[in-house]
Formats: sequence, structure tokens, C-alpha cells
Amino acid sequence: MTRNALNREIPEPYSSSCGVYEGQFAHINDYHRAAPGVHPRKPGDSKLLDSIHEAIVRTGLKDGMTISFHHHFREGDRVMNLVMEEIDRMGIKNLSIAPSSIANVHEPLIDYIKRGVVTSITSSGLRDKLGAAISHGIMDEPVIIRSHGGRARAIVSGEIHIDVAFIGAPSCDEYGNINGTEGKATCGSLGYAKIDAKYADQVVAITDSLVPYPNTPISIPQTDVDYVVQVDSIGDPAGIAKGATRLTKNPKELLIAEYAAKVITASKYFRPGFSFQTGTGGASLAVSRYLRQAMKERDVHASFALGGITNSMVEMMEEGLVDKILDVQDFDHPSALSLARNPQHYEIDAEMYASALSKGAAINQLDIAILSALEVDTDFNVNVLTGSDGVIRGASGGHCDTAAACKMSMIVAPLVRGRIPTVVDRVNTVVTPGDSVDVVVTEYGVAINPARPDLQDMAKRLDVPCLTIQELRDKAYSITGRPDPIRYGDKVVAVVEYRDGSFIDAVRQVGESATC
Amino acid sequence: MTRNALNREIPEPYSSSCGVYEGQFAHINDYHRAAPGVHPRKPGDSKLLDSIHEAIVRTGLKDGMTISFHHHFREGDRVMNLVMEEIDRMGIKNLSIAPSSIANVHEPLIDYIKRGVVTSITSSGLRDKLGAAISHGIMDEPVIIRSHGGRARAIVSGEIHIDVAFIGAPSCDEYGNINGTEGKATCGSLGYAKIDAKYADQVVAITDSLVPYPNTPISIPQTDVDYVVQVDSIGDPAGIAKGATRLTKNPKELLIAEYAAKVITASKYFRPGFSFQTGTGGASLAVSRYLRQAMKERDVHASFALGGITNSMVEMMEEGLVDKILDVQDFDHPSALSLARNPQHYEIDAEMYASALSKGAAINQLDIAILSALEVDTDFNVNVLTGSDGVIRGASGGHCDTAAACKMSMIVAPLVRGRIPTVVDRVNTVVTPGDSVDVVVTEYGVAINPARPDLQDMAKRLDVPCLTIQELRDKAYSITGRPDPIRYGDKVVAVVEYRDGSFIDAVRQVGESATC
Repeated sequence: MTRNALNREIPEPYSSSCGVYEGQFAHINDYHRAAPGVHPRKPGDSKLLDSIHEAIVRTGLKDGMTISFHHHFREGDRVMNLVMEEIDRMGIKNLSIAPSSIANVHEPLIDYIKRGVVTSITSSGLRDKLGAAISHGIMDEPVIIRSHGGRARAIVSGEIHIDVAFIGAPSCDEYGNINGTEGKATCGSLGYAKIDAKYADQVVAITDSLVPYPNTPISIPQTDVDYVVQVDSIGDPAGIAKGATRLTKNPKELLIAEYAAKVITASKYFRPGFSFQTGTGGASLAVSRYLRQAMKERDVHASFALGGITNSMVEMMEEGLVDKILDVQDFDHPSALSLARNPQHYEIDAEMYASALSKGAAINQLDIAILSALEVDTDFNVNVLTGSDGVIRGASGGHCDTAAACKMSMIVAPLVRGRIPTVVDRVNTVVTPGDSVDVVVTEYGVAINPARPDLQDMAKRLDVPCLTIQELRDKAYSITGRPDPIRYGDKVVAVVEYRDGSFIDAVRQVGESATC
Repeated sequence: MTRNALNREIPEPYSSSCGVYEGQFAHINDYHRAAPGVHPRKPGDSKLLDSIHEAIVRTGLKDGMTISFHHHFREGDRVMNLVMEEIDRMGIKNLSIAPSSIANVHEPLIDYIKRGVVTSITSSGLRDKLGAAISHGIMDEPVIIRSHGGRARAIVSGEIHIDVAFIGAPSCDEYGNINGTEGKATCGSLGYAKIDAKYADQVVAITDSLVPYPNTPISIPQTDVDYVVQVDSIGDPAGIAKGATRLTKNPKELLIAEYAAKVITASKYFRPGFSFQTGTGGASLAVSRYLRQAMKERDVHASFALGGITNSMVEMMEEGLVDKILDVQDFDHPSALSLARNPQHYEIDAEMYASALSKGAAINQLDIAILSALEVDTDFNVNVLTGSDGVIRGASGGHCDTAAACKMSMIVAPLVRGRIPTVVDRVNTVVTPGDSVDVVVTEYGVAINPARPDLQDMAKRLDVPCLTIQELRDKAYSITGRPDPIRYGDKVVAVVEYRDGSFIDAVRQVGESATC
């Protein structure tokens, strides 16, 4: 065990192999990109295979290898389950899986873990029953939680070596040119999958929309694809769009959003050509609505919006309020369609979006990021991974990436959720260090990080209650009471990697076998 | 010296280090991509530098390193001369240069070679005075001639390791997002430069059109660019478009084009959804004109046109005769503008265009390629590099790539040029092996390679004189006489790499010091 700069205990061998967190930009060093293998194709060679089974045979996938998937289909994904089912049928064991994220729909993984088919996982996060099962200790090896930028960094640097990437391809030709904007399961940007395709030794495109050569636009080119398999369905459109774009009517969320928009417009960053990123939650989406009003009233246009894209950003672009969209992932169907239609709506890969070790990520050019939180503590550390019961139920996403890189990061969250406080003494799990968090916005008011004296005088102009983070915590505790400590076991069930590859926290087992 | 499969002598150390040509697909083996270095950029870091001088200093460019340039500005390029001038001023010596090609405008290289600034060159070709100077032996080390696909392969595999790529950027933002379709020196596709940017350790974008962030569309992303330098002018638009698109009125060229179009339409490949590539010469462009008529008359549409793109292909796409264009390079201004305007006109990189060791190049999907020749011999070997005097004056281009990969390769060339025969006993220099060449079209008729029995019965349907290649040679010699052997010296001034990395021929010194 080693204690890192945030006083979090990181177990061996993780603390020794990749180092522990020492500060936002402490581990930004020169390196060499990974050197994936290439099996060249001659004229006349076909990439088209009859089945996922044949693809697994042809790639030579075997025990102990690492495979990857993308999460652009979110709750509508059918690819991971299809592939895992066949792998299981073929008796392959001891696999590492490195999906860009995992959804509720991937619950069958629990059984594959229990039976030794999957023995190692890295992901942005874990949801629902899988998160609970892992938090209860069903894996021997801890899951490695990586941010979206951190995963891209790990793949580009070779820390994650993908033997075979299985890529759900909304449209694909026989030679492997893929895009996500056409076909039956359109998901829009394939920003996460692009990196897998570039750096995996072998890439299998799985599609339900095989189109004539050459398929354009080309998100993933034929030069990054080894095999193409056609199946009946790769994704459920309803699941792809599930739950993302809801326009909240919740008065608490609307108040948080209104406060957040007031912070933005009072900040020095709200000027012609500014840039922003918002999330998908109710409050976050509602921020766009208030911001849009302010942008119109004050005639301030944004140069770009970034990130996971929602229809509210697309509408702002189509209204002329936002010049361009840089899109690593689409959260709803209208955004996916916009990517196909609007030349100013541009697909980027996960490295360009957020990697800390790239030649410069787009988030480095970002003014304002609106981010969510399960917990924030009085050091401004943020937890977006574990619930108040210590169970893994969230995802790292681009949280620590954007927070570190943008000029003003804002956490929007209700001060309490039912009987659970959001602002606390110490978050269960640190995903984003407090040094990266500038403003916390709740329905009771905002707290500006004292580490940002340049933002403090904004408080004078703000028509929003300004409190210290301790006052917000006190307010939360006055409603919910001070939370009881979680009873953790000793076993480490997940380690949380910071975007630079160092370890920022570890998650311990909960539940019956937990001792204290 | 080793004799290769074409009985050409390949000198040491080339024959030992990379092998000699043994057949079109003899050296297609698995390998690993190169692993370029990355110097990460933190938020707030600027890439913008004041001058080319500062860029050279910041990259740490020093004696013995390898630098690269792209040739998308062709005779209008100002970037290579600007950079070399500064390098020379700074006293850096012994450089290897690896431009994608070299134009007449780069004549100052002669002086840099003589003074030891440049001691090693790889290029697609050499023109004019530089070609003559090198053929006369001014370099100690032979120039390595690589095809466009071969260069991409060599860069991707690490055979060419680029320390610093200097990339002329028609439009660029401060963080290095580049495209070729906007700005003062629009050249369209940046297909060759894309590979340099991906695999060079350091990349300097040199632009005369600095635009607000984010510059889109993005041909070369910020994640592949280290520094950005603004200069007054990177290219002369007149030079960029120079000489490419001329609609010939030469009756000989028109006859060749008519014959070629008849071969195409009589072939089994002329069917709905076929694909083709043409060159830029007078006859080649005229082929498009006749082909267009036939396509209209017989209602046969092409699925795609590939390669170096000319306006005649763009017009066919805009008329609906060609569905899509895959574009690695634009030969004229209208093509560059079309790339910006038409979503079905798609930019691809040189690896995807033509690399023999990629996961599958676009040429592997190509039906018909129209190619030029300086000489063709009775084994169907083609020379596009050296003149009848043995002097280097041409370029390998994509010749051997497309010829090997497409289903029917056609050489269009006048049987004689003045007193010089095109069809000969033995070409001075083999760039494309006869196994890759299917049909030779001259103004006297066509010769079909006997190695393609499946094409022979096409002759019966052809309203064009069909001859053997020996008959074409005899006809040529009857006009010009049998050419005298060239007086070569012993010194090897260039080695010609085949697309797979093996060596297919060597070019020896000519001129005063040549012995025989």
C-alpha cells in the first residue's frame, strides 16, 4: 500500500507499476506510441466472414488475450453479448475485456466472470447488477477504472494492448470502412471505437448494414479493419437513445441549472468565441437552455461545443449560437443525425477529445465544462463512481479529463438526494481531484474553490447565494445527518486510474463478507 | 550485387538489407507499425511559434536527422525551399530528406547536396536539373525511389523514420488542425502528408492561413501536430495547378485515348459499379472523355474513381456517372474545391490508397487503372523514371502500386516520341514489373499481356488493331531504329524500391565520367 497525494491508499502492484497520483500534471512525460501488428491483405483477399464464430477462429483469439468493445450503443448494445456468448460457447477462458464502458445490458458478464471466461476488466465504469456483483467481490483481480481520456492514453501508449477489437459498425462495406451515421443502429460518432481500431492488432467489424464499397464518410478506415461479419442486429435504437435527453421539469434541477448559467455568464470566460461542454443529466441539459437565452440576449456566440453531444447543442449550432461541434459520442438520435448532416459537426476520436498524453487534446482548448457528481468533498474532490453504500454504480467518463484541462470546471448537483448528502467531508472514491474543480453549484447556492482566487470576485457580480464548500456540507448534513461510515472489506475490487496513468484511489469490497 | 527475379543487378547493402524483388506479392509479411515519439501538451501550452527558425530550434533538429515534406503543392511549393534555406543558414548538415515527391521548383537542393546539407534522399522521383545532377553523380549515397504506396509502407513500418515533418498547411488553427481545402494555397487532399503527420516524431505545420480554433474539416488533427508557424506564403496557386489539366487536341493522344476507352468498354470489368483510376497526361485525361460517352450511352455507372484526382473525374461524379471519389491528391484546382464541397468526394491517406502492407488498400478494390510509361519492354516491364538517355526525370508515383493491385492495368503511351521508341527490348529501368501490366495501348494498336489469357478473347470484340508486344516493338524500331545502348558508369545513383520494400532495379551514373 502507498498513500498518494490525496491520502488515498493504493495497493500493490498498482502503486509500484504505474505510480500513484501526485498532482494533475505530475506524470505528463514523453513516450512512444504503441506499435500494433498488421496482417496485410493482398488484392482479391476477402475480409467478409460468415459468423462471429468464424471471426473468433480467424483472429486466433485464445485464453488470456485482451478484447475490446465500444459503448456507443449504450443500453442498446447487442455486440458485446453476442461476442461473449460465442466466446463462452467455444470454451475460451481467462480473457481481459477492455470496453470503453459497460451498460446495464451487459449483465451476462456476471456469469462469465463467475465461470472464469472473463478474469480482468478495464472500463470507464460499471452499472447496476454488474457493479454490485463486482463490489461484492466476484472477481479476483480488481477492475481498472479509466477515464475516457485515460483509456485513450492507455491504448495509444500500449498500456492496454488489445489483441482483438470487436467493433459494432452501424454501416460498413465488405472491406471494413465504417461509419456510425447510417444504418439500422445509427449511434453517430464512433470516437471511442476509432482508437481501438487504430491500435488493436486485429479488428473485427460487426455490422447489420452492409453497404457497397466504398462506404463514406469513413470514421474507421479499411486500413484499420481485418474482418467484417454481418449479423441480424447490432443494436436496439431505443436503447441507444435511452434516457439521455430528457428536459427536466424538476424545480430543484431547474434552479441548479439557472444558478449554473448565471455563474457562466458572470465569469470572465463568457465572451464571444467561448467554448463549453455539458453533460446529459437533467440539470446539465437545463443549463444549455438558460445559457442559450443568455447567449441570445447578450449576443455572445460560442466557437465550439465539445464532448458527448446532445440535441440541445445541435440546436444551438443550427441557430447560429455555436459555430462548431466536436463530437466524440452522441447521446441521442438527433445528434447522430446532425453529425451526418452538418459539416460543422465534426467527429473526433477519444485521444483528440481528452488524452492527457496526446500532442494536445480538444479539452485543453475548452473554457467551461459542466460536470455531474455523486459526491463532492470539502477538498473539492469528486466521486462519480461509487454510491453512498460504497457500491460501484457510475462511470469515470471524461470527468477528470475535462475538469483538469478546461479553464473553469463546474459541478452541478443537488445538495442532497433523498437522505443522502452530495457535499461531504470525504468522498468515498476520488475520481476527479479537487485541484481540478473550480465551482460547485447546488440548489442552495454555489461554492467557488479557494484555490481559484481569480474566480472569487465573480461572486460579487453573482445573483446567486455564494457559500464556502464547508457551509454547503453543513447545510447538507443538517438535512440528512452525518452519514455513517461504509463497512468495507479489505479486498480491493477496483482501482481508479487518473488520466495520466497513475492511481488516484481504490474501491474496496462491500457487503456480507466485508469486515469493517 | 544480387540479380533479382527480373535479372536486374541490385547493389549491396540494399540487396542484403531489404531483399530483392522476387514477384509481385512475394514479400507481403506480417509486421508491426512504427511507434513514433510523442511530446504531450498540457492545457495552456501554445504550439504557435514565430518562425521556421524557432521551429527548427524547438524540434531539436540536428545533423544526421531525417525530415519530410509533402508534394501537394507540386510546382507551386514554397515550403521545402523555405525550410531548407533556414536549415542551411543554421549550419545543419548531413540530413536525410524524405519528401513524397520533388518538383522542378526544388532545384536549390542541388546546392545543398553539393555542400553536404543533404546527403540522403528518398522520393517518388526527381525532375529536371536535380534529376540530371543526381544522374551525373553528385551524391555519394544513391537516392531511394519509392512508389506512393511504398513510401507509405516504409513510413508506417518504420523503415523511413521521420524525425521532423514540415507540413505545408493551406489552413491551420493555432493547435494544429489542418486541411487543404481552404486558405490561400488550397491543394485539396493532403493524403501524402497525413501519413507523415501520423508517424513523424515531430510535426511542424507551416501555414499562410491561420484560422480560429477548431479548424474543420480536419485532414490532419492537432494530435499529430507539435508546432504551428505562420509565414507569408506556402505555395503559388498557379504552380499548384500547373500543367495538370490540359485537354489534348493532339490527334495521336486522342487516338490512343479512343483505343483505351474501347478496351475498357470491351472488357469484362466494364459493368455497373465498376471502378477506375486515370492519370494526368493528355491521353489519360482524354480517356475519361471517351469513357464518359460510353458510360452515358450504355448507362454504366462507376462506384468510385480513385487516385490523383482531376476535374474530369469530378465532372463525372457531378453528372452522376461516378458515385464516389477517393482522393489521395488533387491535380487541379477544381478537384480541390470539389473535395470541400462534395461529401461523396472523400480524402484518403497514402496508406489507404496504395500500401502493399496495409490491412487492405483502396487499389485492391480497383477494376481498371490507366497508367503512363516512358518505356515498356517486351516483358511488359515499365519504366516511368529514367529517360532514353538514362537520366532520372520521372517519378514512380502510384504506378507499380495500382498496376499490381487493380484487375486490369492499362499503359497508354505513344509508340514513339520523336526519335525515341516507347516499346523496347528492355527498359532502362524497371519501376513496374511486367506481371502487373495487362494491356499496352498505343496509337498503332494494343498488346494484351499473354500472361492474362482471360483477357485475350476481348481482342475479338475489339474494334482496335491487336498486336503482340514484339510487333509493337518492331513497329517502333522500324520508325526510330534500334536505340543505342546508354553509356552508364559503375556508380549507382539511385535504387528503385518495389512497393513491398524489396529492390527492383538500380540506376547508374551517366555523363562524362561514365565508362560504358
